[in-house]
Amino acid sequence: MKLTISRNELNDAVQQVSKAVSARTTIPILSGIKIDAHAQGITLTASDTDISIQSFIPLETADKVISTIHRAGSVVLPAKFFVEIIRKLPHEEVNIEVGDRFQTLIQSGAIDIQLMGMDPEEFPVLPVLEEERVFSIPGDILRTMIRQTVFSVTTSESTPILTGVLWSLAEGVLKFVATDRYRLATCKVNAGVDPGLHFSNVVISGKTLNELSKIIPDHNVLVDIVVADSQVLFKVGNVLFFTRMLDGTFPDTTKIIPNQFKTELFLNTKALSEAIDRAYLLSREEKTNIVRLSTTEDGSVEISSSSSELGRVQEMLTVEKLDGEPIRIAFNSKYMLDVLKVVDSENLFIGFNGPMSPIIFKPEHDNSLHLILPYRTTN
Amino acid sequence: MKLTISRNELNDAVQQVSKAVSARTTIPILSGIKIDAHAQGITLTASDTDISIQSFIPLETADKVISTIHRAGSVVLPAKFFVEIIRKLPHEEVNIEVGDRFQTLIQSGAIDIQLMGMDPEEFPVLPVLEEERVFSIPGDILRTMIRQTVFSVTTSESTPILTGVLWSLAEGVLKFVATDRYRLATCKVNAGVDPGLHFSNVVISGKTLNELSKIIPDHNVLVDIVVADSQVLFKVGNVLFFTRMLDGTFPDTTKIIPNQFKTELFLNTKALSEAIDRAYLLSREEKTNIVRLSTTEDGSVEISSSSSELGRVQEMLTVEKLDGEPIRIAFNSKYMLDVLKVVDSENLFIGFNGPMSPIIFKPEHDNSLHLILPYRTTN
Repeated sequence: MKLTISRNELNDAVQQVSKAVSARTTIPILSGIKIDAHAQGITLTASDTDISIQSFIPLETADKVISTIHRAGSVVLPAKFFVEIIRKLPHEEVNIEVGDRFQTLIQSGAIDIQLMGMDPEEFPVLPVLEEERVFSIPGDILRTMIRQTVFSVTTSESTPILTGVLWSLAEGVLKFVATDRYRLATCKVNAGVDPGLHFSNVVISGKTLNELSKIIPDHNVLVDIVVADSQVLFKVGNVLFFTRMLDGTFPDTTKIIPNQFKTELFLNTKALSEAIDRAYLLSREEKTNIVRLSTTEDGSVEISSSSSELGRVQEMLTVEKLDGEPIRIAFNSKYMLDVLKVVDSENLFIGFNGPMSPIIFKPEHDNSLHLILPYRTTN
Repeated sequence: MKLTISRNELNDAVQQVSKAVSARTTIPILSGIKIDAHAQGITLTASDTDISIQSFIPLETADKVISTIHRAGSVVLPAKFFVEIIRKLPHEEVNIEVGDRFQTLIQSGAIDIQLMGMDPEEFPVLPVLEEERVFSIPGDILRTMIRQTVFSVTTSESTPILTGVLWSLAEGVLKFVATDRYRLATCKVNAGVDPGLHFSNVVISGKTLNELSKIIPDHNVLVDIVVADSQVLFKVGNVLFFTRMLDGTFPDTTKIIPNQFKTELFLNTKALSEAIDRAYLLSREEKTNIVRLSTTEDGSVEISSSSSELGRVQEMLTVEKLDGEPIRIAFNSKYMLDVLKVVDSENLFIGFNGPMSPIIFKPEHDNSLHLILPYRTTN
């Protein structure tokens, strides 16, 4: 293998695939990035077996030459060093040449780097997926759906299926669900997909979705999604992102979200968020994060918390609308702050069915819905 | 105690003194911030016994009323919560009232906070220093002198005196020295001080100097410095910063800096820094951080490093000037990067006296001088 390539394009591709390199792997070849130089251009691949990322660098774009292949071939280079040195090369052009026993010379300006490469034959081969269930969704919508649900997955390995987000598609509507049994986040979007296409119980690790989010560029692109039997493939520009689905059956959560409420609140998201944040400051000293919300006779809401050692915070909040029965409810303020952080709408509906029943959040304009369980306190 | 105060001024003062609150103290009263309301205004104090910070808030400035004292008095409030809640109060005015058993009510807009205060009589009294040795220095110069030396103190508690920076003043020149036995940093400035004033062996903890740096504002102010018997006091605007000196005798380092060199290099600081950084990437994989510098026959410099597992980096660097004997020397690249990071001059002199002798760095325009010991390698 012998090639010349523009540093910027090489660097972009290296940064993208580096997200699939696991920091601590027991399989030496997976600590590397595979480089394939072929007639169409250069393909970089990295994999930690859970996810695999492949980035393709073409020979040229409309306006300039990006890479020249002098001799086709492959090599696997040690990722940690390779990623950083490529980022820190000062010159525009990089030459890479593989010699005997995968000894690789990287040359740029007055800089010569000799790296011990590894045998590309040892690198795992990426799966070829049946492209039967394929649909597209704008990148910014996918990123928002991930952001509004992924924080609710569990971090506990005792229920592995709940470390993932449930994806389902039916009648053109794509829906995400995440829960850790104490809270639940859902988001659905009419993705304009062929209504004949549907799937359910596709569960993708929350960690993987966070990595996927980083691959989706800020400028708007369509993401093509291939849902195969046990793998999902995301195509974002020149990048292919493969992930396994999680094994197991995601619990049915459709019945736990009530449609009717005994108390209905409508209020400003930011004002609520700041008030809860102040009450949280005190409650976290008690480790429980308990904050209380009570309606008052004059139609306001009181947010309060207390700590046996420090004291008490109490704050009146004006609301846009308050209907139904009075309520006094205690909850984990950290969970509520997590919800309020991902809400993009200025105003927010909150529904209650008494102090022992789930609290439901519906942002005014978002496509998300959130649930948190209250604390059952005696006071 | 009962007072009304502008939130912004209170917040600024609270943030300043909070730097002296120790996160883990076994003395409960030191986890608090002391508030004194008196005829002249409000004084906040915090102390971790090593350093104490006091900030004074006047009743008014030229153009506005800042605080009103309704009833003089004192209280100590729990710092961690107090610092954060004051930062997060949304209203411009804050009322603080101390009741029975130091129960304190903080009220701002629709927010009521009840805090368990502590007895101010338990709070340590700050020392009254003999103001005999007093001088002033511009804040930005003091900050630069700290930055250019403090990184060279030792972190090892086995030689406590070397965790500090040595200050001395003689003939109007203020000098700082820091060393961890493997490297040494000095910085001296003609501070325009009365030449009759002098002191030596004043050693101030590096950690304390870092905290002091944060107190010095970006806009230029004069810092008044009082050097007493075992304490030093810094006056920065309305803030008093007290610190103990470290006990012990700082080693004499005046004789280890050579004046003559067998090899003299003059080169661009940034170009050298970037080349060392690339070589460091590989050398850190070997834990030793060894990088080599060699002069070449054509008057350039070669920077190189190697790792038995990964390979080798080698880079030619053009220099402004090279005089004297050829040199090939190995050193800890992390130490050299630390030096190059604090150098503000575009160009830099480096002097060598062979591969076993200290390397000396003199930035073209800075007032600093740095020394690092080479590695004694056989190859």
